[in-house]
Amino acid sequence: MPIASPYLLFLGDAADSLAAKTAAGIAYWRPQAALGQFRLPGCRADLGLPDLTPAEAAAAGARTMVIGVANRGGILSDGWRLALLEALDHGLDLAAGLHQRLDEIPELAARAGMLRRRLFDVRQPDRPFAVATGAARPGRRCLTVGTDCSVGKMYTALALERELRTRGLAADFRATGQTGILICGAGVSVDAVVGDFISGATEWLAPGNDDGHWDLIEGQGSLFHPSYAGVSLGLLHGAQAHRLVMCTEPGRPHMRGLPGRPLPPLADCIALNETCARLTNPAARVAGISANTSAMAPAEAERWLAETADQLGLPAVDPLRQGVGALADALLA
Amino acid sequence: MPIASPYLLFLGDAADSLAAKTAAGIAYWRPQAALGQFRLPGCRADLGLPDLTPAEAAAAGARTMVIGVANRGGILSDGWRLALLEALDHGLDLAAGLHQRLDEIPELAARAGMLRRRLFDVRQPDRPFAVATGAARPGRRCLTVGTDCSVGKMYTALALERELRTRGLAADFRATGQTGILICGAGVSVDAVVGDFISGATEWLAPGNDDGHWDLIEGQGSLFHPSYAGVSLGLLHGAQAHRLVMCTEPGRPHMRGLPGRPLPPLADCIALNETCARLTNPAARVAGISANTSAMAPAEAERWLAETADQLGLPAVDPLRQGVGALADALLA
Repeated sequence: MPIASPYLLFLGDAADSLAAKTAAGIAYWRPQAALGQFRLPGCRADLGLPDLTPAEAAAAGARTMVIGVANRGGILSDGWRLALLEALDHGLDLAAGLHQRLDEIPELAARAGMLRRRLFDVRQPDRPFAVATGAARPGRRCLTVGTDCSVGKMYTALALERELRTRGLAADFRATGQTGILICGAGVSVDAVVGDFISGATEWLAPGNDDGHWDLIEGQGSLFHPSYAGVSLGLLHGAQAHRLVMCTEPGRPHMRGLPGRPLPPLADCIALNETCARLTNPAARVAGISANTSAMAPAEAERWLAETADQLGLPAVDPLRQGVGALADALLA
Repeated sequence: MPIASPYLLFLGDAADSLAAKTAAGIAYWRPQAALGQFRLPGCRADLGLPDLTPAEAAAAGARTMVIGVANRGGILSDGWRLALLEALDHGLDLAAGLHQRLDEIPELAARAGMLRRRLFDVRQPDRPFAVATGAARPGRRCLTVGTDCSVGKMYTALALERELRTRGLAADFRATGQTGILICGAGVSVDAVVGDFISGATEWLAPGNDDGHWDLIEGQGSLFHPSYAGVSLGLLHGAQAHRLVMCTEPGRPHMRGLPGRPLPPLADCIALNETCARLTNPAARVAGISANTSAMAPAEAERWLAETADQLGLPAVDPLRQGVGALADALLA
């Protein structure tokens, strides 16, 4: 059952704008779903949306209050509870992607049950999945993969969805993490699926489709991240992607969370992803590079992208600087 | 908390000896833990152990009744419940590795709670795991990997534990599946761990150890199995193994459960496992081949093993025909 939109975005007492990055992602990628923001005293984030109480948001048509703020540990702050109850009282469902579940808080579970509101904990799967079959399925699929975590895989997949739709093509973003799910209202947080069912969950998430249809599947982690590579491989096999887009952040000093461990060379990362992807789609290949060059000056970024494109024989862009037109061209070539 | 032994092996109403293969594995690999068998009317399996009731087994020192029989669907049969209650009443804990949990049956959970008996559902992890760090740890580790599921990875790891101990070395089998856990009394069924924690669970299962100590880690699935490869890769990274033993079944017509999908060439399977294993242990390499040649005549098996050893430059044995001495030599070389 999809999360009903539009949303009231709950920013709580966010200490800074980074703490509200889930809400910021929703406001950026699904502006039509972002009806307003609800901030508590002390909140230092501001998305530039109308400040609405739950009652005002409900009157304006909001269906769900989304917890768009994360605090340390991914838990539901005590200071938020009255605000969450207020949202339920005014007819809104609640959605969150934290480690702690909304329905683990007895007060919230009881109030939601009494009022027949829904609590969406998008991090935990809400259905069982079958074991993957690896059987070929119709439709075209692109998976964003990466040298590391947090290198722009979600952003790139969403930007490709928008680009292909602008060109009049049928295309759907398929969310595999909590922020992506809250942005598009559906998906599976594959890192929370039991090991045996990661590929099966991905086959379910991006099922067979029309010949001309593209699924843009959000990647997770990296085959080179020693903490999470199992998830990345299960996703790669389940995606059965025709094309991969390799995401990276040039100049990042080490793998996320692992000081001293450098990022893999791009060419090695491309080779291993292609080798593994071909188990379920023999035609799979990397179509281009998507780089987060925000730490570089414009001229330096352009030089890095040009050199990388030249070395690998692939288009290389920073989606925020150049857009993803060149990647879309490569997908459709 | 480890499962207390010795065990009374519950064979239930097993339709044939294959249905009782978990019990057979325990009787073969841990004969000192297999005090007796408990069979219901109609049971067609017989391990050749003394037939004991729970009362007799408890009087003889049994601590746990292990459900060593699986029926279709991995559920607890209605016809077993009185027998399971009888075991609790006579002082035995219960252990099972089925999909359905013992404590999901209210009658069993209530009786166990009242009598302070323990219910071990070894398929589901009983503790949270940290995310893997990939940090180098001391001790020597060998992981059995495979071209497919069910090609002898558990048997080979157990045989290597026995061989190394016979040679006076410190060695421990580390179980990663329900049968292995029930055989040795501890372990983690990694296929039931949430994706993000597969490698972390493996780091916990085979922690740093003395320099001369060997962990023999039971592998799962295959990097080439499109249903389960995520588990295999998470296990490979978490194991941080110095040596791998590649297990296979020559002549198997297709990957388990996937008619039409052939097994990978051994050389490809070795190459990909070595490439991936080196992310967390740069010294990792395949030390030898363990083949289940039971479908071949002895001369044919010997020819296949000799040709394979010659082509790959690695020792190749069938543990049931030649033993694993040559593999142990290769580990220690």
